[in-house]
Formats: sequence, C-alpha cells, structure tokens
Amino acid sequence: MKEISGGVCAPKGFMAGGIWCGVKANSQKRDLALIYSEKNCAAAAMFTANRVKAASIIVTQEHIGRGKLHAIIANSGNANACTGEAGLASARRMAELAADEFAISPRDVAVASTGVIGVPLPIAAIENSIGALANSLRGDEAGHAAALEAIMTTDTRKKEVSVEIEINGVPVRIGGMAKGSGMIHPNMATMLCFLTTDAAIPRELLEKSLRRATALSFNRLSVDGDTSTNDMAIILANGASGAPAIAEESAEYGIFAAALEACCVKLARALARDGEGATKLVTVTVCGAHDEQTAETLAKAVAASSLVKAACFGADANWGRVLCAMGYSGAEFDPGLTGVRFRSLAGEIAVCKSGQPVGFSEEDAKKILSEEEIEILIDVNSGDAAVDGTATVWGCDLTYDYVKINGDYRT
Amino acid sequence: MKEISGGVCAPKGFMAGGIWCGVKANSQKRDLALIYSEKNCAAAAMFTANRVKAASIIVTQEHIGRGKLHAIIANSGNANACTGEAGLASARRMAELAADEFAISPRDVAVASTGVIGVPLPIAAIENSIGALANSLRGDEAGHAAALEAIMTTDTRKKEVSVEIEINGVPVRIGGMAKGSGMIHPNMATMLCFLTTDAAIPRELLEKSLRRATALSFNRLSVDGDTSTNDMAIILANGASGAPAIAEESAEYGIFAAALEACCVKLARALARDGEGATKLVTVTVCGAHDEQTAETLAKAVAASSLVKAACFGADANWGRVLCAMGYSGAEFDPGLTGVRFRSLAGEIAVCKSGQPVGFSEEDAKKILSEEEIEILIDVNSGDAAVDGTATVWGCDLTYDYVKINGDYRT
Repeated sequence: MKEISGGVCAPKGFMAGGIWCGVKANSQKRDLALIYSEKNCAAAAMFTANRVKAASIIVTQEHIGRGKLHAIIANSGNANACTGEAGLASARRMAELAADEFAISPRDVAVASTGVIGVPLPIAAIENSIGALANSLRGDEAGHAAALEAIMTTDTRKKEVSVEIEINGVPVRIGGMAKGSGMIHPNMATMLCFLTTDAAIPRELLEKSLRRATALSFNRLSVDGDTSTNDMAIILANGASGAPAIAEESAEYGIFAAALEACCVKLARALARDGEGATKLVTVTVCGAHDEQTAETLAKAVAASSLVKAACFGADANWGRVLCAMGYSGAEFDPGLTGVRFRSLAGEIAVCKSGQPVGFSEEDAKKILSEEEIEILIDVNSGDAAVDGTATVWGCDLTYDYVKINGDYRT
Repeated sequence: MKEISGGVCAPKGFMAGGIWCGVKANSQKRDLALIYSEKNCAAAAMFTANRVKAASIIVTQEHIGRGKLHAIIANSGNANACTGEAGLASARRMAELAADEFAISPRDVAVASTGVIGVPLPIAAIENSIGALANSLRGDEAGHAAALEAIMTTDTRKKEVSVEIEINGVPVRIGGMAKGSGMIHPNMATMLCFLTTDAAIPRELLEKSLRRATALSFNRLSVDGDTSTNDMAIILANGASGAPAIAEESAEYGIFAAALEACCVKLARALARDGEGATKLVTVTVCGAHDEQTAETLAKAVAASSLVKAACFGADANWGRVLCAMGYSGAEFDPGLTGVRFRSLAGEIAVCKSGQPVGFSEEDAKKILSEEEIEILIDVNSGDAAVDGTATVWGCDLTYDYVKINGDYRT
C-alpha cells in the first residue's frame, strides 16, 4: 500500500466539486459539496447511533437500502436536524436536485448535512445553485479539495487520504475525506466521511470492510463525549480500476480491508487532532486486558475524561486521573496490577507500576507531555498471555478554546 | 422543618474541629478535620462506585460494617489513593490515632481523604498533630466551620446545612457539611459529605433514608463526568435529642427521611454551583418520561454534555444540543414529541415544541441564560399520564477556569 494524492478523486471515474450557495449566511465559505461517479456504485454506509437523527440520515438510510449509490450531495452550515417534516422534505429535495442534474434516480443519491441543529434548512439557496454545483465537478485533486472545503464547519485542518494497492496485479485506489471537530465521540461524531474506491467489490463485502474499519477508527475516537445527530461514513465502489472483482474471504479482500482500515484510522487520527480547540493528539492504548472489548472500554474512558484531557493540555503527568477514569469505566481490571507510561517524540516515562507511584522526573514528564502528539500506554497485566486484549483510542486535550468555540457557536 | 445554624454541631452531643497539620505542604490552610459524638452512634454510609478505591474507602467500609461510629477523621490535600499497602496502613493509622485520643475502638472511627491521587500520605504530619486536633473540638458553629474548612480543596464556597424537625413533639436536628468541586459525577464525586443527627433511629432505617436521599441528590449531580476514587457520605445518629426512637414506616420516619433528603439536595445544589470554574448552577428537569429511571438518564445526559455546559456558559440557547444529548443517552423517548424550555429569575422561554424549533427572542433567551441559576425544563410527553416519570439533576457550566484549574492541579 502506498499513499498517493487526489483524495476522493484518486480512484478512477470519480469527480468532486464544491461551491458557496448561501447556507452559510455569515461568510462566503464553500457550503455545498458533490461527489459523483461516472458509473453507479456498490455502496455501504454507517450512521449515528443517536436516537435523534437528522433528516439527511433518515433519507440516506432509505436510499442505501438498495446497496447502490451514484452520488453524494452534502451541505455544511446547517445540520437539518430537529426540523420536522419540512426538514425531511428538504433532504429529499437535495437528492432530487442532484439526481436531476445527471438524470439518475434520487434513490441513488446520498444526502449529508452538518452545522447548527434546529434551524430550518434554506433549501432555496441549494435549489438556486445546483447547476453551479454540477458545473464545479472535476476529476482531479482540485475537485476533491473544493468538496472537502465545502463540508467543513469549525474544522481547522483538512482531513483527507488516498492510497493505492494492487489487486491481482492491477492498481486499485481508495480515497477519502472527513469533516468534524466538535460533538465527536465513539459511535460516530458530527463526522462526515466520504470514501471512494475504484475496486470492484460486491456490496456485502464493502459493507463488511467498512463496518470493521469504522469500529477500529471512528468508533474509537473521542473529542467531547457528545455523539452527533448527523454522523455518517459512506463508501462508493465503482469498479473502474479494471481489477477483477474481490471475492469473499480471498487474499484480495484482506488487502482491500486492511487498506480501508488504514485510510479510516488516518482520518480518525486527523479528526482527533483537530478536535475543537485541541492543541494535542492523545493516543490511549490499553493492553493486557481480558479481551479487546474490555481494553476498548478502558481506553475510551481515559480518552474521554475531562480531567485527563485537561491534564494533557497542562502537560501534567497526573496519572491518578488515568486510573480513576479506568475505575469508573465499568470494565473489569485490577488497579493493583496496572502500569501507566507516557510517551512522545521527546521520550518515554513510567509513572505507575502495579497501581502505585513510581519515582519519576517531573521535568522529563513535562517535556514528554508538551509534544503535539502524546501517548498514554496502559498495561492492565491481567496475566493470561493467551487473551491479550488490546485497543487503541484517539482523543485530544481540553483547552480554553474548546470552551470558547462552544460557548457561542450559533452567533 | 426549619433551617437553623450550627452545621454538624447543630444536633446535640456533637463536636467538631479542624487544624492545619501540614498535609497541604504549600499553604497553611486547614487540612485535618474531626467530628466526634459524645455517645457512640448508629451510622450509615454510601461509597464511590469507582473500581479504584482510596485506602480511606476500604478502611471505612470495614468499620461501618458494624453499623456504629463514634468519630470521623478526615484530611484534605492528599487522596491516599493508588498508594498500595503503605496507604492502607496510613488510613488504619488515622483511625487508631483518633481512637486513642478518646479511648474508643478504632473500628468506631471513619476515615476520609481528599486531594491528589498517587502520592504517599505524609502520615507523620497527622501523628504529630492528633493532640492539637482533639483539642480543637468545639460543640458550636465555630467547631463546624473549622472542620468544614479542613476538608476543602479547590472548593470556593462552603457547603453546609442544618435543619430542625419535630419527632413526637421533641425537636430533632440534622446537620451536614460537604466538600467537592471537581471530579463530580453521578454515583458520587470527590465528594465528602458528613451528616450528624441527634435523632434516635436504628441503623437499618438510617441506612435506608441515606440511600434514598443520596439517590435523589448526590447521585443526580454532575460537574465533569469523572467519578472519584474517594467519595463517601456518612451519617451519624446519636439519639441525644431525647425524642423517641423512630420506628419503621412510621410517620416520624417519613418526616426524618424527608428532612434528610432536603439536607442532601441543598448540599448537592451547592456542590454543583461550586463546580470547578463554574459560573452557573444548571438544573435539568425531565418530565413525562415512561418512568423515573428514564427521566433521570435523560436529564443526566443533558447535564453532563460538554456542549450543553459550554452553551450555558455562553448564555447560548442552543437547544439542539439538549435534544442531541438526550438522543445518545440510550434512554427511550420520542424526539418528535419533546418540548424544551429555559427558565431563570429573568423569565421563561419555550425554544422547542414537538422536537421542532419555536420562534423565540434571542435577546430574551440570552437574558434568561445569563442568570446565575438556570433551569432546562424538558417534557418528553410520552403521553401516559399515569406513568409520569420525572427527575431533576444538577450541574454547572463549562468554563475557561475549569480547564485552567485542571490543567495544572498538582503544581
């Protein structure tokens, strides 16, 4: 697998574009994006677990039922959530507008929205600009970049990926973009993730690989413990690479699934690093647990703890908060056997062994925790080497700016 | 029931005191407290649900097993948690030291600690000052105040209560103090709560009334989602009022239990209001749910949401975040039937009806949310009037100061 450029336009046969249509009323930043495949695609998607679902989620869940998609239309600046029947009609209208441009079925269009909740979507702005949106489509990196810009809200960095693998000797590409920085928590965030591939892969395998990749990436991500109403991750596979179709449980499936997982992990790490107000990417790894689920629960509790996050911001080696968070996670472990280390480019330091303090240099710890990417490494030593449950979760620090951004988001 | 003064010394036969012994090494603020009853007491206690338990929790859980206590010794400045066998020995030593002063059994002494985790407790400081601590005991409000000061850490306000009721025509008093401002979350916080009463009440009823009062107060409290390793609420009943013993299911039991609940709710509200960095008390009430548990789960998710808390700080009527938090709580409700109102001394405003936006004046909303005490009122309208599940939860806003306080707590 090698990294390449191009984002969602890296795979053959995909185009993307983005414009400003006016949903973002206070700026002229791009707010309407389109991703389009020349051929209809096998498609799979994962959605928010929130009981309150945006209109776009409801509509796209209906459309994905057939396992096919031709295009994705997405707006930023308005979540179209808690907007009732009118909101649902607007989401359907978005699919129709895109479909009409290409003479395809509205049911082959996915709809996504992100932004403020509970404000009616100004659908007229989208209606008026649909032609310009279709005209903005390009099959190169600039098309990808315009679409990516158009789905960003409080994001400060672009989250994108593209890789190339070989399937039976034929180059196959996967590209992706993601947005999201607040309201991010396991089980999907105000996170939109659009992935494309020119692999030929049946819908069932596409869904299987996306489900696994999501579980190991976006669902192991925590910025602020809030799970959004609008999250979705979609993948479109158009088969345009010319590579043979990927068969179930084949070596080729393994190659594809591993590449997709790597793409999603890269995007998840980028989402965590760009958490609202974040200054640091915090990676928490738990090993030695009874099983993977236990390790994940423990790691998530640590990554989501406001006190741990604030300590990371302050570069304070306050490992007691790490154990404390594990203690209330509900997962089983023995605090008396647990060890904690902090690691970054500046070095590595053990701060707790067998649940008790280890003498360490506060100065060294400060240096390690002052880096932009820090790791909290936890070994719960449950002892049975045969069942070494391990999981890695990504989060970020809690900062003044998080409070500032979220104290007055709407105005 | 009437409010009186005196705190834990308001009930007859109780004394309290507090001194500085040096556990708080960087200041000369009081750090060692004692509460003592002239007679041995019926006693009950509730403890943290955290799997990582401080040494004081382990020791006090052992001691309370007999349902009797004579005294409580507590230190601030060091949590004596994650400190292994040495920590456990120190906690036992604290009980012994207090017991020796009064020639009582160490098993009749409760031990409590609060402060930084993972640092050995400097037990010598406590040993050297135990005589001075015993000498500081007083049966009046000054004794209560000294003890209360000695259990405070980042607290900025005193949390105290004392009330008088009548049992069969005889005045009976309940007094209490609490500390805690960070690491506060349902299922107990770094919260210490010491309650005294001169009621004559058997241990079983005392425990029953404390369990219920705790469930409706401290367990409905959220500051930062972190559940501490050290939390406990203890009540001592010495019978010194001279009132007849309270019998099971009697009217007198009802009066006592209601008064105890009122005391705990007052302390819980004070704890929320003094949440680390908090500028506002946020009260969340959910009604119309299928049952009380559902209402509580929904209300807790709202009170604990970082996004809702940041919006309260910014006086931003962002009700979409309220619905969003309810949506990921896991509790059952229909977003399409849900109404949300904001209320404070400045007025009341409906912002959402049937899950959809209601036109409202942003200016009015800002005024309402700028008060020091604000209420979020949620009616999920599940419709069956016969099962109107209602619950109230207390929290606070998320501010710059929370991040500041917790970014560098140890230094």
